[in-house]
Amino acid sequence: MPLTRDSRRAAEELDALNQRLVTMGGLAEDRLRQAIRGLVERDQALLTDVIVGDVSINTLQMEIDDRCFKHIALFQPVAVELRSVISALKISADLERVGDLAVNVAEVAQQYLSHPPVKPLIDLPRMGDLALRMLRQAIDAFVRRDVTSAQAVLRDDDWLDALKDQIFRELLTFMLGMPQTIEPGLDLILISRHLERVGDHATNVAEDVIFVVEARDVRHRATLESANERRRPPRTPLV
Amino acid sequence: MPLTRDSRRAAEELDALNQRLVTMGGLAEDRLRQAIRGLVERDQALLTDVIVGDVSINTLQMEIDDRCFKHIALFQPVAVELRSVISALKISADLERVGDLAVNVAEVAQQYLSHPPVKPLIDLPRMGDLALRMLRQAIDAFVRRDVTSAQAVLRDDDWLDALKDQIFRELLTFMLGMPQTIEPGLDLILISRHLERVGDHATNVAEDVIFVVEARDVRHRATLESANERRRPPRTPLV
Repeated sequence: MPLTRDSRRAAEELDALNQRLVTMGGLAEDRLRQAIRGLVERDQALLTDVIVGDVSINTLQMEIDDRCFKHIALFQPVAVELRSVISALKISADLERVGDLAVNVAEVAQQYLSHPPVKPLIDLPRMGDLALRMLRQAIDAFVRRDVTSAQAVLRDDDWLDALKDQIFRELLTFMLGMPQTIEPGLDLILISRHLERVGDHATNVAEDVIFVVEARDVRHRATLESANERRRPPRTPLV
Repeated sequence: MPLTRDSRRAAEELDALNQRLVTMGGLAEDRLRQAIRGLVERDQALLTDVIVGDVSINTLQMEIDDRCFKHIALFQPVAVELRSVISALKISADLERVGDLAVNVAEVAQQYLSHPPVKPLIDLPRMGDLALRMLRQAIDAFVRRDVTSAQAVLRDDDWLDALKDQIFRELLTFMLGMPQTIEPGLDLILISRHLERVGDHATNVAEDVIFVVEARDVRHRATLESANERRRPPRTPLV
C-alpha cells in the first residue's frame, strides 16, 4: 500500500523527533559523565562547568514537547504512532531529569572535594558507568524499537541497586570508624542515590519501548511475576 | 453555541478523568501520611501496611493512562483539551511516584525504628505536612485550572528546600557528636530527601496547571527570571 503524503510526512516527523531524543540523550550523558569525572579526578572546573550550563538540554526538551503536541494536533495519530509520540514526551522529561541529576552530582561532588578523600573511588564510578550505559541502551532501544535490548536495561537496574547497597555499607563502616569521614561519606552516599535515579529514568525509557512496541504496560506487573523478573524497582530499599 | 454530542462527551470524559486524578492523589497522600505517622509514632504495623500495598494506586495509573490514550484517539483534541489530557498522563505518573516515595519513606522508617531515637522529630513531620499540602493544592489547582494557586505551590517548594537543609545541618551535628546516631541520622536524612522529591512532583503538577491554562512552558524560565521567581528547583543543592 503506497503511503499517502500525510502519512509519509508523519513518519518523517517521527524520525526527526527520534533524532532529537538521541541528541538530547547524548547531551544528558555527557553532562553526567563530566560530573563523575570531575568527582574522580577532583577537578573543580569540570564540576563548575556542569553546574552552570544545561540550557541546551532544557531548550531541546521544550522543542521536543512542542513537536509532539504539533504532531498529535496535525496528524491525529493512533495506535503505535500515538504511543510513540506520547512516549517521546515522557522520555524528554526523563532526559531532562538526568540533566538535573548531573547537576546534583556535580554540586555534591564540589562539597565532597572540600574534604580529604574518604577512600579511592572505585564502586561509585562503576555505578556511574552502569547508569550511563543503561541510559544509552534504553534510548537506542527506543529508536530501534528493540524490546530485547529494553529488557536488558530493566535487568541491569538490579545490578545498579546492588552496587548502591554495597557502596552504602562500605561508607557506613568508614563513617562509624572515623568520624572525620562522616561529612564526605554522606556526600558519596547522596551521589550514589542520584546515580540510582539515573537508572530509574533509564528504566522508564526501557518500559516505554515495551509499551510502544507491544502496547502493554509493564510498569506494575512486579506483583504478578517472580522476583527474578520484577520490572520496575524505583522504590529504593534502604541498605 | 450549543455543544455537539461529541464535544459534550469529550467534556464529560475530561471531568471523569479529573475525578480519577483526585482519587489517585488522595490515595497517594493517605499512604505518605501513614508512612510519616508510622515514623513519628514508632508504629511498625502502620509502616508495614504502607510497604505491602499500593496496588490501587498502580491500577488507577493504568486506568488513567488508558483513558487518556482513548481520549486522544477518539476525540482528537487540540489546544487546551489536548494539553489537559497530556498533563493528566504526566500527573498520573507523578502521583504514582509519590506512592512509591511513601513506600520508600516507610522502608527507611522501619530501619530507623531499629535504633533508639536520635531526637524528637519536629522538622521532619513538618516537612511531610508541607509536602502533602503542596500535593493536594497542586491537584486541586489542576482540577480548578487555578494558576494563582499553582504558583503558590511553586513558592512553597523553596520552603521545603529550606526545611530539608535545616534538617540536614541539625542531624549532621548529632552525627558528628555522637557516633551512635550516625546510622539513624542517615535514615532521617534519606527520609527528608524522599519528602523533597514529593515536593518536586507537586511542583511538576503545578507547572502543568500553568501549561494547560496559559499554554506556556514555565519549566525552564529560571535562568531568565530573578532568583525570587525561579520556578522549578528539582535540582537539590546540597546543604
